[in-house]
Amino acid sequence: MTSPPVITLTTDFGLADAYVATMKGAILTINPHVVLVDVSHGVRPQQVRQAAFLLETAVPHLPTGAIHLAVVDPGVGTERRAIAIQTPRAVFVGPDNGLLSGALPDDARPAGSAATVPLPGEYRCSALTNPRFHRQPVSDTFHGRDIFAPAAAHLSLGLPISELGDPVNRVIALPPFHASILADGSLSGAIIHIDTFGNLITDIRSDDLPPQRLEVNVAGRNIPGLAPSYASAPALKALVGGSDFLEIALQGGSAARELGADIDDPVTVATRP
Amino acid sequence: MTSPPVITLTTDFGLADAYVATMKGAILTINPHVVLVDVSHGVRPQQVRQAAFLLETAVPHLPTGAIHLAVVDPGVGTERRAIAIQTPRAVFVGPDNGLLSGALPDDARPAGSAATVPLPGEYRCSALTNPRFHRQPVSDTFHGRDIFAPAAAHLSLGLPISELGDPVNRVIALPPFHASILADGSLSGAIIHIDTFGNLITDIRSDDLPPQRLEVNVAGRNIPGLAPSYASAPALKALVGGSDFLEIALQGGSAARELGADIDDPVTVATRP
Amino acid sequence: MTSPPVITLTTDFGLADAYVATMKGAILTINPHVVLVDVSHGVRPQQVRQAAFLLETAVPHLPTGAIHLAVVDPGVGTERRAIAIQTPRAVFVGPDNGLLSGALPDDARPAGSAATVPLPGEYRCSALTNPRFHRQPVSDTFHGRDIFAPAAAHLSLGLPISELGDPVNRVIALPPFHASILADGSLSGAIIHIDTFGNLITDIRSDDLPPQRLEVNVAGRNIPGLAPSYASAPALKALVGGSDFLEIALQGGSAARELGADIDDPVTVATRP
Repeated sequence: MTSPPVITLTTDFGLADAYVATMKGAILTINPHVVLVDVSHGVRPQQVRQAAFLLETAVPHLPTGAIHLAVVDPGVGTERRAIAIQTPRAVFVGPDNGLLSGALPDDARPAGSAATVPLPGEYRCSALTNPRFHRQPVSDTFHGRDIFAPAAAHLSLGLPISELGDPVNRVIALPPFHASILADGSLSGAIIHIDTFGNLITDIRSDDLPPQRLEVNVAGRNIPGLAPSYASAPALKALVGGSDFLEIALQGGSAARELGADIDDPVTVATRP
Repeated sequence: MTSPPVITLTTDFGLADAYVATMKGAILTINPHVVLVDVSHGVRPQQVRQAAFLLETAVPHLPTGAIHLAVVDPGVGTERRAIAIQTPRAVFVGPDNGLLSGALPDDARPAGSAATVPLPGEYRCSALTNPRFHRQPVSDTFHGRDIFAPAAAHLSLGLPISELGDPVNRVIALPPFHASILADGSLSGAIIHIDTFGNLITDIRSDDLPPQRLEVNVAGRNIPGLAPSYASAPALKALVGGSDFLEIALQGGSAARELGADIDDPVTVATRP
Repeated sequence: MTSPPVITLTTDFGLADAYVATMKGAILTINPHVVLVDVSHGVRPQQVRQAAFLLETAVPHLPTGAIHLAVVDPGVGTERRAIAIQTPRAVFVGPDNGLLSGALPDDARPAGSAATVPLPGEYRCSALTNPRFHRQPVSDTFHGRDIFAPAAAHLSLGLPISELGDPVNRVIALPPFHASILADGSLSGAIIHIDTFGNLITDIRSDDLPPQRLEVNVAGRNIPGLAPSYASAPALKALVGGSDFLEIALQGGSAARELGADIDDPVTVATRP
């Protein structure tokens, strides 16, 4: 018994509307045998960076060969390109606005800020320009349903990516999620995401952390040391989350509310004297 | 490889409770081979009209032959009928309270307000009165699980709709979602739905819009012209959404919050002098 | 055609994060042929009792043989055990903190408060200690993905439960959801759950209710009699919900908001003089 193809969905559409269902319907109409997995539809409206982060943390845990369909698309109906990227491990379909950055290895992504970068040699990428694989008529306000979902569905049937449209060699990518290492060895990062529990997820990776005597500063508070688990201390604590990023949590409460912190707020890690 | 049957679900049950899961369990217990697609469980409590709209916009994008199970049912446990409607394209299962209006073509639906109408000749409809296809004992507060879900599951196995119970010739239907065209050619409509982005979805269809120089009035604000896309202007704009209805959007924000507008608020479209 | 195995998921992870998707990915990577059913991801953070209740009400409606994966796990990364329990009807996988109480018959559960109890003789239970069935490396903050989801997936492939790790004879269980019957015949219970509609679900079972002339007291209000359905009266009412527990509802509104009531608030039922 061969494995059915997996298509994942990541959007900022929420679940109260029928938008996600119409995308799933567009997919199932083309390939009724896919397995659909929702990554998140709760991305904040038009927050491409937050969505890219969520997708990037989920991808390593989804089956090899999965097709990751992502639509956070403030530029829908403008000149921004629609693309599909084939990597050695998976396929990504979505707007060319940085959302699919997780398709690229860190060393192929830009430093500093979002930029257009060349794709690694073993990647294949097409713009979704072939109208044969669009649902007609194409709505200028809903490419998720009319362009992206059909492309993912056709790919799940085995269509070569080159059939979808013009070849693409360079795509827009976000910098890797990574803190800056300052001259004195301290780390300067930021909050990327706030989860359901109110935990503050940062872009500071566990392997950049000083081996001991560290101190985290966030929203004017100093948090000494690294806790081994959420349950380990009754107060605000820093710990390494499931995707190997530093996060700030509050036992039995919301660190975000306790600190009044939000996405993009700075977080630093220093070594205590 | 034949396509597995698709059952969609539309309810006001939310996703925090186990109600949707028990309906899915009732279905999978009868037919473990269906594909389940959530249309929305975020309908406002007991808002039959909003749910009918969401379902109606999703249905054309779901596979032909899909079974649409919808439960927004303020009258559960009263005399309102439970029905299943077979149309040439799909099957609808739910309470006979207007929720399944999208099963009917516009010209078979009433003008003005909800009314009982005859079904088109090629339709088949049954009341779900045959206890053989109910989960026993039937709870008077949860027909979704005990009557509607089992009916959908049995239909997905190929049960003829006539087996489910007494034949039905007339059902309750809502008027088509359509603005009134006034004597001076202007359009008088209303907000039907507010989406996750705060976009105000109206019942004004794109093909009723004047070809040029239009002006939309909503919540005391005049919005001139039609924008081609969400990204096209930095302010409040009117545009045609993915289901061909006029909507009001705010670039990077919520039109609903900006305007203090809500479902049922009036929207008019006139031609500028 | 044999039925595909069903794995259900119950967590407090919410749907805005990618946590649930990574668990599903971990499962599908091991067994791509399972059917996944979300029971709820909207449990209040770390509310083990609420989650146990939701799971317990859903289980009887899910297919026999289903694997119920539940992760509400404030003790993740501490000494609390991870377990899988095979019952005659289903399999339960999760932390040993009372969450899986619904696996046990009422008469095997403790009275009064949560306690460690022996499992019935026909049950099988293992601690998830065999690292062969863990995703490596195991994160100390996300056993849902690295220990529980892989265990459920391996069980769905037919792995005997004894392979997962050390045998277990006693587990932590919550008391059955049941009101106390006082000396005068009145019932003393509490609100266990508030649903999407604002209905207050209590732990008072329908078969404990006095046959007539009952009066419910909650939040300082007396509600006489039992309503047959949500639609039956225009005011606050008591009725029996779909899982046979007494609930308090408000026609067209939220009883929780109307009464300012919350989970754990007391509810009593007496016979009117």
